[in-house]
Amino acid sequence: MKTQTILLASRPKGLPTAEQFQFETIELPTPSVGQVLLKTLYVSVDPYMRGRMNEGKSYVPPFTVGEPIAGGAVAEVLESQNEALPVGSVVVGNLPWQQYSLADGKGLNRIPTDKAPVSYFLGLLGMPGLTAYFGLLDICQPKAGETVVVSGAAGAVGMVVGQLAKIAGARVIGTAGSDEKVAYLKQLGFDEAINYKTTPDIAQALAAAAPNGVDCYFDNVGGPITDAVYDLLNKHARIALCGQISSYNDTEAPVGPRPEGKLLKTSAKLQGFIVSDYFSRWPEGVRKLTEWYGQGKLQFEETITEGFDQIPAAFLGLFTGENTGKAIVKVA
Amino acid sequence: MKTQTILLASRPKGLPTAEQFQFETIELPTPSVGQVLLKTLYVSVDPYMRGRMNEGKSYVPPFTVGEPIAGGAVAEVLESQNEALPVGSVVVGNLPWQQYSLADGKGLNRIPTDKAPVSYFLGLLGMPGLTAYFGLLDICQPKAGETVVVSGAAGAVGMVVGQLAKIAGARVIGTAGSDEKVAYLKQLGFDEAINYKTTPDIAQALAAAAPNGVDCYFDNVGGPITDAVYDLLNKHARIALCGQISSYNDTEAPVGPRPEGKLLKTSAKLQGFIVSDYFSRWPEGVRKLTEWYGQGKLQFEETITEGFDQIPAAFLGLFTGENTGKAIVKVA
Repeated sequence: MKTQTILLASRPKGLPTAEQFQFETIELPTPSVGQVLLKTLYVSVDPYMRGRMNEGKSYVPPFTVGEPIAGGAVAEVLESQNEALPVGSVVVGNLPWQQYSLADGKGLNRIPTDKAPVSYFLGLLGMPGLTAYFGLLDICQPKAGETVVVSGAAGAVGMVVGQLAKIAGARVIGTAGSDEKVAYLKQLGFDEAINYKTTPDIAQALAAAAPNGVDCYFDNVGGPITDAVYDLLNKHARIALCGQISSYNDTEAPVGPRPEGKLLKTSAKLQGFIVSDYFSRWPEGVRKLTEWYGQGKLQFEETITEGFDQIPAAFLGLFTGENTGKAIVKVA
Repeated sequence: MKTQTILLASRPKGLPTAEQFQFETIELPTPSVGQVLLKTLYVSVDPYMRGRMNEGKSYVPPFTVGEPIAGGAVAEVLESQNEALPVGSVVVGNLPWQQYSLADGKGLNRIPTDKAPVSYFLGLLGMPGLTAYFGLLDICQPKAGETVVVSGAAGAVGMVVGQLAKIAGARVIGTAGSDEKVAYLKQLGFDEAINYKTTPDIAQALAAAAPNGVDCYFDNVGGPITDAVYDLLNKHARIALCGQISSYNDTEAPVGPRPEGKLLKTSAKLQGFIVSDYFSRWPEGVRKLTEWYGQGKLQFEETITEGFDQIPAAFLGLFTGENTGKAIVKVA
């Protein structure tokens, strides 16, 4: 079986370009005992993958130059030598950027096809949804009447965070990078949404949107938005530090106002996390998110690009703010 | 009864000077019902008081220009119209910088005179000791074998933090500003102590002292020492943010490398706090600290300046790193 694969051609400096991605065609052997042959249906492109393109420790080990890039994907079992994964079953897991791949079943989870679109297991019911679930509910613990700010609110994680905060009874403010996204956030039930690209003074806009201060901050972005939120923290504020997409392509260590004095004055907590910290609680998270989705309490949005050859472009689009919600590539 | 009092003459810009302090003599009336006349024995000078000299919200409300400066003090009851505080009893509480003062008993606690020197209720068994106790044991929760870094380790809080971390079985590294302080920390049982003023590369020195990385950081200082510790954090590190004395006299908002990326990679927690957050647990803290002190497991050091008129000088000395341990002024 022949398949195309996308290798990391070189490590990017700053913003990645098409040059970092090398398409090759390889031959896959037939599955041996315990293995399955998978046909990739959907590939997930995620901001965290930018970190894996650098050398050195990030959340997760770096990609290797000359090897396939890998990430979240939904695939169908075409051939099986593994009883746990019969032909026709649909799985989610970490797979190479390939049309077809061989896997031994480790780290793959079968997913139902009747609860939600299967691509949602890369979004609302997958890594981004669980990131929102644990970061907001475990770290921030918003209470009814409190004010929650979410940066990168129109992203796959942020839009779930805001809706979960509404379920908790909080006032929710989101920042996003276009008027379309702002309109979408309002439609999702956000109390306030701010277009950080067109607002002349983001600090003033946030202060106006949060007249009672900020109790919880779910940060996907970092940089000046985060600096402004730090100035609005209430006593005992909780910050879930989930991402810093504003600096992922920086070539020098980012510099800014020191936050410590502000966190000290307010006895605030800032907690970095990655969804794998909560690995043992994933089933709980998937169950709750599926339940709320089934009850119509959670909406979700995908930006679906079609075609295997569009994976690099979809990935690069993450850093120019082109997508609303979960960026997905439909491969087959 | 006449007493001298020290008023805040003006708000300092940057490092305070003698000009900020105005001595006056005032007349105290005799105590009315419920009141006591107190003779100040010891006055505590503490870094947090610098924040109260500024306008605007800090931990605690600002001092008022033209009014007495107030802080922790130990005093003896000279006259009493309050049954709970008989003549001769010794109390600790927040009192104006005066030789004598009137108080209504609220916020004053009687202290034993047979457990430790009464001035220790301004140090080891008072605010600094409790700050160390709750910040280290509640926020950092060091485990046996882990590595704990304490900045400002020869201060009243830091020296208790280090000893409590040793009681917990951790490896303890302290930073301080003189060779005498470093020698004292070694004598207290610190595994490593670094003179940040004479060490050419603090980041390198910390890395060498913490070959297994840093699990807990108790930060009194901020600035470059803190930046260096952030680079050494282990996964799930815990940081108790207690003070930022390196920036208390800054006239502009301090700028530095953004820490968020480092906290994110390590799923680290950074928790600001003030000892009053733990008010309901103070009795527990005093009991445990008194017990360890009685067992010889905790040592404590004071720098005692004599004379009421020396209070401003003792306070200013906090910012030039002159004192080891708790800075106290013996008034009577």
